[in-house]
Amino acid sequence: MLDDIRITPDSALLLIDIQNDFLPDGALAVRDSEKILGGVFSLIEEFRDRRLPVLATRDWHPAEHASFLSQGGIWPAHCIQNSKGAGFPPSMPNLDAEKVFSKGREREFDQYSGFDGQNEPGVSLETYLRSHRLKRLFVAGLALDVCVRHTVLDARKKGFEVVLLNDLSKGINERETRRALDEMKISGAATADSREIRRIAREIPWRFPALALDLYELTMAMTYVETEMIETAAFELFSRGPLKSRNFLIAAGIETLLDFLESFCFTEEHIDLLCRTCQPGFETDRLNSLRGLRFMGDVLAVPEGTILFADEPILRIEAPIAQAQLIETAVVNIIHLQTMIASKAARCVLAASGRRLIEFGLRRAHGAEAGLFAARASYLAGFDASSNVLAGIYFGVPLSGTMAHSFIQAHENETDAFFSFAVQNPDDLTLLIDTYDTLGGAGRACEIARVLAEKGIYVKGLRLDSGDLLSLSKEVRKTLDMKQDKFIQAIQIVASGNLDEYEIKRLIDEGAPIDAFGVGTRLDVSSDRPHLDCAYKLVEYAGVPRLKLSAGKRLLPGRKQIFRRTTSDGRMLSDVIGLADESIDGEPLLKPMMKHGRRLNPPRSLHHARQDVLRSLEALPDEIKSLAQRAPFDVTISDELNELARRIERSPM
Amino acid sequence: MLDDIRITPDSALLLIDIQNDFLPDGALAVRDSEKILGGVFSLIEEFRDRRLPVLATRDWHPAEHASFLSQGGIWPAHCIQNSKGAGFPPSMPNLDAEKVFSKGREREFDQYSGFDGQNEPGVSLETYLRSHRLKRLFVAGLALDVCVRHTVLDARKKGFEVVLLNDLSKGINERETRRALDEMKISGAATADSREIRRIAREIPWRFPALALDLYELTMAMTYVETEMIETAAFELFSRGPLKSRNFLIAAGIETLLDFLESFCFTEEHIDLLCRTCQPGFETDRLNSLRGLRFMGDVLAVPEGTILFADEPILRIEAPIAQAQLIETAVVNIIHLQTMIASKAARCVLAASGRRLIEFGLRRAHGAEAGLFAARASYLAGFDASSNVLAGIYFGVPLSGTMAHSFIQAHENETDAFFSFAVQNPDDLTLLIDTYDTLGGAGRACEIARVLAEKGIYVKGLRLDSGDLLSLSKEVRKTLDMKQDKFIQAIQIVASGNLDEYEIKRLIDEGAPIDAFGVGTRLDVSSDRPHLDCAYKLVEYAGVPRLKLSAGKRLLPGRKQIFRRTTSDGRMLSDVIGLADESIDGEPLLKPMMKHGRRLNPPRSLHHARQDVLRSLEALPDEIKSLAQRAPFDVTISDELNELARRIERSPM
Repeated sequence: MLDDIRITPDSALLLIDIQNDFLPDGALAVRDSEKILGGVFSLIEEFRDRRLPVLATRDWHPAEHASFLSQGGIWPAHCIQNSKGAGFPPSMPNLDAEKVFSKGREREFDQYSGFDGQNEPGVSLETYLRSHRLKRLFVAGLALDVCVRHTVLDARKKGFEVVLLNDLSKGINERETRRALDEMKISGAATADSREIRRIAREIPWRFPALALDLYELTMAMTYVETEMIETAAFELFSRGPLKSRNFLIAAGIETLLDFLESFCFTEEHIDLLCRTCQPGFETDRLNSLRGLRFMGDVLAVPEGTILFADEPILRIEAPIAQAQLIETAVVNIIHLQTMIASKAARCVLAASGRRLIEFGLRRAHGAEAGLFAARASYLAGFDASSNVLAGIYFGVPLSGTMAHSFIQAHENETDAFFSFAVQNPDDLTLLIDTYDTLGGAGRACEIARVLAEKGIYVKGLRLDSGDLLSLSKEVRKTLDMKQDKFIQAIQIVASGNLDEYEIKRLIDEGAPIDAFGVGTRLDVSSDRPHLDCAYKLVEYAGVPRLKLSAGKRLLPGRKQIFRRTTSDGRMLSDVIGLADESIDGEPLLKPMMKHGRRLNPPRSLHHARQDVLRSLEALPDEIKSLAQRAPFDVTISDELNELARRIERSPM
Repeated sequence: MLDDIRITPDSALLLIDIQNDFLPDGALAVRDSEKILGGVFSLIEEFRDRRLPVLATRDWHPAEHASFLSQGGIWPAHCIQNSKGAGFPPSMPNLDAEKVFSKGREREFDQYSGFDGQNEPGVSLETYLRSHRLKRLFVAGLALDVCVRHTVLDARKKGFEVVLLNDLSKGINERETRRALDEMKISGAATADSREIRRIAREIPWRFPALALDLYELTMAMTYVETEMIETAAFELFSRGPLKSRNFLIAAGIETLLDFLESFCFTEEHIDLLCRTCQPGFETDRLNSLRGLRFMGDVLAVPEGTILFADEPILRIEAPIAQAQLIETAVVNIIHLQTMIASKAARCVLAASGRRLIEFGLRRAHGAEAGLFAARASYLAGFDASSNVLAGIYFGVPLSGTMAHSFIQAHENETDAFFSFAVQNPDDLTLLIDTYDTLGGAGRACEIARVLAEKGIYVKGLRLDSGDLLSLSKEVRKTLDMKQDKFIQAIQIVASGNLDEYEIKRLIDEGAPIDAFGVGTRLDVSSDRPHLDCAYKLVEYAGVPRLKLSAGKRLLPGRKQIFRRTTSDGRMLSDVIGLADESIDGEPLLKPMMKHGRRLNPPRSLHHARQDVLRSLEALPDEIKSLAQRAPFDVTISDELNELARRIERSPM
C-alpha cells in the first residue's frame, strides 16, 4: 500500500482551480477552501524540490459564459478572464504560463475537466503530460465534486495513475462530494492524505542515494556524453566462482534495486552538491551534462529468492551506456549485500531443520542499513522473525524480542526482575536466565513461573545467551521436565550467542533440546564469507558482444540466459548458461522486470517469495543442501556461448 | 557550516507579526510580504512533522495606541485588538493560544520585541522558551527592520541561538533593513535560506534512525517507565578481548554518535509507525509513554582517533535508564562499524609506509551507509583519498578515481579509449591497462603518452587491477623507465585488486615498484575480522556498581577511566583501567563530550583527527605496529577496580 502512493519520477502535481473566486470572499466561495492552501504550498515545495512539475488548471471564462446564472446556467458569474477573481491567490508561488491550463474559455460551453484546457502556447494537458512522459498525477484543488471530479475521471480514462489528495480538495455539495469520491475510487484513483505523501517521500528507508557512487562513474558518464557515445550497453551482474563455503546463492535485493532505479535521478540539488565538492576535471559545465539524468533502461533479472550458482547472471541492465555506468556501484552494492546474507541465512534454515530462527544481528551489522537488509534477506531465506523494529515497520518482517541483561542487573535480584518484567509483559514471555548463573536462573524462573501461573501469566521460553549451550540446554531441559507442572514442562528453550549454521547443526546433531535459535552477528556480517565476488561487466555495446580478458578468471561475453531443467516434481537437475536468444531446453530464469525505466509488474511480495524459497530449499539435491562443499551443481556453458567466447578471446579488439 | 543551521531537537519556529495589516491591502502593508507565506507554511509543516513548536508574535494594540500617527506616533493605526487587520491570514494553519505572544497591548508604550509579549495564560516568551528547554529559534516574519530585528537582538542578548530566515522576512525601509541585518549578524545570529534549512533537514545522510532498534529495547523502556525505574544508569561500550588479528583499535564513529544523540527523538510519527506494526504487548497506550522521549543524558568518550586496546571503555553513557536502554543498538552499531574499519585501515597505513592509499570499496561494502562510513573511518585512520563521492560531499574526504574496464571495452580498441579518455579528462590522468593484457596495455599507454604530451596532456599513472601485481608492476616499471622521455619515466604505478595490509606489505617487502594502492572490498568489510566483540554493558544503576557474570568472560563493574602513561616525547608506555574517581598517574582518556543531551564542544574536525592519528601511529611501540600479533600492550586493572569486581563477583545480587 505504501508503495502505491509514492511520488515516482514520472509524477506531477496537478492543482485544480485554486482561484480567488473559489476562496473566501470570492464569487463562488467553496467552504473551507482556504484550509487547503498551507498544505498545497508545502506540496508545491516538495515537488519542486524533486524537480517534478507543478501544473494548474483554471476556469477562464468570457464575461457572458453559458454557465452563468445570467445566461441560464447554474453558477454565479465567476473567474472572468483577467479579473482578480480568476487569479491565483497572492500567496501562491508563481507558475510558468506553460504549466497553467485554462478551460471554459469559449462562451458557448462549459468545461469541468482540466483535460479540456490548454496552456498559453496552446498545448492540451494530455499532450503536455505525454510529451513529458508523466504518468502519475497527484491531484488537489477545488471543487472536489465538480472540476476535480471530472479531471480525475478523465485522467483515469486516459490511463494516467491518479492519487487524489483528500485533505487538499473541498467540495461544494456534501452529497455530490461523497458521490464523486465513490466514482473516483471505482475508476481506480487512489486517495491519500497529503501529509502521508510527504511522510512517505521522506521516510522511505535508505533509498540508495544517487550520489553514493564511485568518482570514476561520473568521469565515464560525462565522457560518454561529451564524445556522443549513446548506444545501448548491456551489463550483467554475477558472482564469480568458485563460491567458497557456499554451495549455492539465493538471489536477493532485486526489488530493492528496482525501487532505486525507478527513483534514480540526478536532480538540480545533486548537481549543486557535486559542484560544491568540485575539483579539477569536474567543473560545473561538465557536470551540467548529467542534470536531470534518469534511468530509462530495461532490466532482466531472476525473481527474488531464486537459487543460483557461480557465474550465473543475476540480472542484466540494458540502457544507454552513461546511465548503465552511473548505476554500477548501486547495482553491485544492493544485490551483493542481500544475496550474501540470504545465502548465509538459507544455510541456517537448512541446519535448523524446522526449528524457529530469529535474526538478532542489528547491533553489529555494518550500519543500520545493513541491519535492515539483513533482516529482510534472512526473512526471505526462511527465517521466522527478527528483532529489528524497522524491518517490521518497512518490510512486515515478524518481530521478536526478549529482555536485556541490564534489566536484570538494574533490579535488586533476578527474581524481582523476572516478576516485574512478566507482570508488565505477560504476552509471549521469555525470561533471560544467564545473567549470573544459568542453572540457578533456570531454578528461579521455575519458581516464578508457578507464582505467575496463579495470575494467569505463563512463561513461554527461557533464553540462554552464553556458556556451553549444549550442556546448559540439556540441564535446563532436565530441570523443566522434572517439574510436575505441565506449564513448566511446556516451556521452550531459546539459545543465542555466537551462533551460525555450523554451530546450529552441531548443537542439533549432539541432541541439544533447543527450540529456537537467535542468530546475530555471524549472520549479519556473513562472518565466514563477508563478501562475494560480485561483478558488473559490460557484455555488449551497440549490438556487439564484449569481453574483458583476465589472467585466471574467464568471463563470458554477450547477453546471456540461464536455462534450468527440473524433474516433473520440481527437483533441480541442471543449468545451462547460453546466449539470450538461443533455444535450449529448460526454464529461462532471467525475466523482464523493467522496461524504459518502469517496473513491468508490482513489487513481488516478500512473504510469497519466502514461501517459494522454502519450497526451493526443500527441492535441492542433497549434496547441495549440505553445509560442507561437495561436488558443484551441474552448470554447463552452451556450445554457442563457448564458441563466441573463444572467438573474442582470440581477437578482443 | 552545515551543522550550524540544523533543526535541533531544542529548536522552535518563531513567526513575527504575520498579520493581515502587514500583508497587501493591510493598514501597514510591507512590500512583497505575501511572497513569504508559501515558504512560511512549508516550514510550519516541517516543524510540526518533527513535533517542534511553532510560535508566533503579534501586534495587539488598543485603539488609541501611542505608536499611531493620531497619537503622535510614527505608524498609521494598525493591528487593533480583535480587528480583522490584527488577525493572521486565513490560509495560515491554526496556532494554539498558548503559542501566540501579544505585544504592544498597553496604550502608553510601544513594544517591538516579541520578548515583550505574553501569551493568553499570561506567560512571557522567554519563560515559555526556558520552561520548554528550547534553545534555538528559527525566525521569520514582518517587518525585518522593526519587530524581527528587535526580537532577534533580544533573543541573542538572552543567549538563545538564532537562525534568521532571510527569504522569509521582509523589511519596510531598505536602508534600515540592511542595517538590521548587520546588527543581527554582529549579535551572532546566523542567517539562512529556508529552502536550505529544509534541504539539510532531509539530506543529512544516514542519521541513524530512531526506530532501528531491537524490539526488546522498546519492551525494556516501556517497562522502566511503567515500574517507575527512572534512576540514572551508566553503560560503557568496549571491545572484549582478545582482539584477534589486531594489536590495537582506533576509536571512531564518536562524532557520528553525538550527532545521532543530539537529534534522537521518539516523535509522534515514530509512535504512529510503531502502533501500525503493533502486536500483543505493544499497544498504543503503552507506546504512548515513549512519545516525545529524547536523549537528555551525558556522554564521556575518548576523542575520535584515540588508540585503544581490548576491554578499554570507548565511551560511557549516563542517563535515565530508559533512555540509555533505547539507544543501545545505535551506540553499538555506530561505534562498532567505524572502529572496526579505522582499525583495519590503520594497519594498511602502517603496511604502506608512506605510499598513497585510496579507499575503493563502496560496491561491496554492506550497503551505501557502510561504504560512506568506511570512507570516513579509513580517511580518519590515515588513508589519502576515497572513490566514494558521497564521502567527499559530506565529510570532505579527498576524492580519487580512474577509468572503467567497460569504457575500454566499449571502444574499438584500447588506444582509442585511452586517447578519448585523456582528451576529455586531462587532469590527474591515470590509464587502466589490464583490460586485455597488461604489458601490451603498458606499451600502448606509452605510445599514447607521447602523442598526448604534444598536446600538453601528461599521463600521471598507470593502473593494474588484476593478475600478479608483483611481477606485472616490475615489468611495467621497466617498460616505463626504458623510455627516453622524462614524462614517461615520471609515470606512477597504481595497483588494486584484492589488496589488504598483508598483501601491501608483501608487495613492498618484495620490491614491487608500486606508488599507490587502491584498497577496496577487504577493507570495507574488514574481511579477516568482519566484526569486533563490542558490548554495551550496564556498569552502574542508581549509584550502585553492577556486573554481569559470564563463564569465561570477565567483565568489570562501575564507572571507569583509562589512565595512559607516555614518555615525554609522546611514546605510549602503559594504560591502567581504574575507577573514574581514582587518582592514578597518566592522562585520563575519557573526556566529557555531552551534558544533558547537548554537545559540550563543536564536532571535532575529521582532518585534525586524521593528523593526530598519523602522529599516534608513528609513536606506537614497534611490537604493536607489527601486523602479526605480538605481546599485547601493557594494560593493567587498578587494585581498587579489581577489588570492586571481586566483591561483586562473590555476591552479585
